[in-house]
Amino acid sequence: MNVKAFIFDTFGTVVDWRGSIISEGTEWGKEKGIDIDWARFADRWRSGYVPAMERVRKGDLPWMTLDTLHRALLDNLLKEFDIGDLSEEEKDHLNRVWHRLRPWPDSVSGLTRLKKKYTIAPCSNGNVALLNNMAKYSGLPWDLILGAELARHYKPDREAYLTSVSLLGLRPEDVMMCACHLGDLEAAREFGLRTGFIHRPGEYGYGGLREAETAKPGDFDVVSENMLDLALKMNA
Amino acid sequence: MNVKAFIFDTFGTVVDWRGSIISEGTEWGKEKGIDIDWARFADRWRSGYVPAMERVRKGDLPWMTLDTLHRALLDNLLKEFDIGDLSEEEKDHLNRVWHRLRPWPDSVSGLTRLKKKYTIAPCSNGNVALLNNMAKYSGLPWDLILGAELARHYKPDREAYLTSVSLLGLRPEDVMMCACHLGDLEAAREFGLRTGFIHRPGEYGYGGLREAETAKPGDFDVVSENMLDLALKMNA
Repeated sequence: MNVKAFIFDTFGTVVDWRGSIISEGTEWGKEKGIDIDWARFADRWRSGYVPAMERVRKGDLPWMTLDTLHRALLDNLLKEFDIGDLSEEEKDHLNRVWHRLRPWPDSVSGLTRLKKKYTIAPCSNGNVALLNNMAKYSGLPWDLILGAELARHYKPDREAYLTSVSLLGLRPEDVMMCACHLGDLEAAREFGLRTGFIHRPGEYGYGGLREAETAKPGDFDVVSENMLDLALKMNA
Repeated sequence: MNVKAFIFDTFGTVVDWRGSIISEGTEWGKEKGIDIDWARFADRWRSGYVPAMERVRKGDLPWMTLDTLHRALLDNLLKEFDIGDLSEEEKDHLNRVWHRLRPWPDSVSGLTRLKKKYTIAPCSNGNVALLNNMAKYSGLPWDLILGAELARHYKPDREAYLTSVSLLGLRPEDVMMCACHLGDLEAAREFGLRTGFIHRPGEYGYGGLREAETAKPGDFDVVSENMLDLALKMNA
């Protein structure tokens, strides 16, 4: 392997979307007098994500950013959880909780090590502004921001991966896609990229509705326990 | 002014393209036994830049990256300077001198200050790979990389500026375009961006064929002596 750049799934792989939404939601709810099950709220919001993107991927909806899709899902969720009387500003603030997600404890240190030797960038379905705000908020040391918005195609569409590779001026085999989700890596591998699995056992909480995905050594080019382990395995 | 992001012209404004090419060319020429006037070589290369982009901007040529335009210009230059017998690898290495340009002495410190308070990104006609390689090589601390390639339009086309603004999720008036070239700033202003002039008196050398452009206080939203002065004027 002669990998020159690492590109990363973000939600789940780099940041703890569920824990961050529960934590911020709980605090914000106390201020606003909104007492709901924020774990269920986070899970319901996330469960709308793939179907919404599928509609864009199939052409039922025109290209739109993840911020826009999140907002449409949020508007439905507010009805479902019987949360009324929010101002437009409050709804926008809540929708942008996805811009304020917190990294897993090893993410910043692992990325910082990788960055010394390699190019690192998100290759996420999140839009560029979301990813930039998240990086500023949580100290993610990206070299640049790549992903779905630059291709106007959501992962796992071929264009989302290959546009990132092309913008880096590299060949697919020079780039390693890293994720805690098997489908993302299987797609990247199909399009010629290297693959790195990162275990994130807590992505959906523990004992929750859904189990985190797992992989065995040999399933991908690298299978790692966390971001620091990935960096060490790549001699960074 | 409520500026949230600063975007930068790169060649001349952030990095000293002329000095870098002279310095690397001279050293490389010694190794290869190529004894030419590298200042003239740099000036001739750069003088082909605007006309080549104009052909893309007018639609005479399809979209192509600056790397590709630089290479076509280089192939002509090699004939003009009577440099033969270079391998494809050597030509590619020489063409990529634009990926290895060195920052002005104040660029990294000024950008580092600005980054603490604002988003910073290049908005350059250089392609993303060129800008990323330059940042890795010279320690430019960009938050993300923006510019012509993401819009598939060269500056001063409207799309080059407004695609950058849109990817940042901001309004034009929230973004300050910074450059040492008047035309770049005049275009950005026309499209609603804030403007910051940075003096770079040495861009074309001293006593050379061409004088660096200058501006007076009041000509733009900010007129600064260098990158650190810009950061201080923006309270960063």
